[in-house]
Amino acid sequence: MDLSLSLEKYLDDLSSNSPTPGGGNAAALCGTLAACLGTMVCNLTIGKKKYQEVEKEIKDLKEKLVSARKKFVILAGRDNEAFEKVMDALKLPKETDEEKALRQRALESSTYNAALVPAEVISACKEILPYLEIIAAKGNRSSLSDTGVAVSLIGAAAEGAFLNVLINYSSLQDKTPYRDFLVKHESAYSQVIEKSQQLTGEIIQKLRT
Amino acid sequence: MDLSLSLEKYLDDLSSNSPTPGGGNAAALCGTLAACLGTMVCNLTIGKKKYQEVEKEIKDLKEKLVSARKKFVILAGRDNEAFEKVMDALKLPKETDEEKALRQRALESSTYNAALVPAEVISACKEILPYLEIIAAKGNRSSLSDTGVAVSLIGAAAEGAFLNVLINYSSLQDKTPYRDFLVKHESAYSQVIEKSQQLTGEIIQKLRT
Repeated sequence: MDLSLSLEKYLDDLSSNSPTPGGGNAAALCGTLAACLGTMVCNLTIGKKKYQEVEKEIKDLKEKLVSARKKFVILAGRDNEAFEKVMDALKLPKETDEEKALRQRALESSTYNAALVPAEVISACKEILPYLEIIAAKGNRSSLSDTGVAVSLIGAAAEGAFLNVLINYSSLQDKTPYRDFLVKHESAYSQVIEKSQQLTGEIIQKLRT
Repeated sequence: MDLSLSLEKYLDDLSSNSPTPGGGNAAALCGTLAACLGTMVCNLTIGKKKYQEVEKEIKDLKEKLVSARKKFVILAGRDNEAFEKVMDALKLPKETDEEKALRQRALESSTYNAALVPAEVISACKEILPYLEIIAAKGNRSSLSDTGVAVSLIGAAAEGAFLNVLINYSSLQDKTPYRDFLVKHESAYSQVIEKSQQLTGEIIQKLRT
């Protein structure tokens, strides 16, 4: 994904009817925002006397979140590429039986590939949620709402990614070989949603006191 | 908010320990992404023969979503400004009793102002959710997952904004005059969450069939 684009141009492209970026890309970007916000809270914790005892742990988490940001950005780019491959397959000729069969095979494999990318987004969301949980518990208390926003964004990123897994899975002509794939990632998505809702509830409680 | 910034620079700024952008800004940006995705689905519906009957309605919704995008961007910018005003108040001198009183008054009013901006983000989220509901029902069926991602992003934007209302409200020394304000916006936030979860559930069901 081209991060040298201006925010304005990205928003214009997202709004337009061009094939990419679409919802899968936006979901991955939402994960990126969450990783960046988590990193920010680490940066606002590191070097503060009050948080000296947790400094090493927070520095480790920061490194993990910086890696997660990179991963989400790569996945956002791969989401665009995967969708473009589906579009390419749709444009293949379908006059003869042979052409039809070739086109169908290309469609099936590109559609499965387009489901794989958001599935990886869900996994990346699942991976960073426990980091955000520790940051909420031990990081800078003044930035607790920022950690909370990161948690909400991870929930939305996982949900948006699951919708993209599902629409691609539903487009497959032969779903049988991929049923376990769907069950696995639906379960991961449900776990992320459950955990993010629980964590947000805890953060809201803390902010009230 | 300066939309001429590159995505990379925005992500760097969000990750850094600079006062802005922070969670409130990211929540408003998340609302922007939702409005853009909704606009995209309108653009993918308008001009298609299959959707001729709903064209006028979808065109109207597109206009509303384009306005919502602008509103979210303005709120993202105002969130930065409001937080900077709180930071300014914190830096005021506090040697004499008079200075202390002045500083406290500046802190109270800037903190309330910093709660007002995310409260407006919640209202903007509440406003566009019914538009997304119509788009999910009548817009391009091939883009249903994109509408779903927009709905998830609106949920996260409202939740992130509420966390920012709450942290600012909690920082007020005298909360009494603002209790109704909190109750009103907590109720709006809960309505957005409930509606977005219901809508996402319906979209997931539709995508399974």
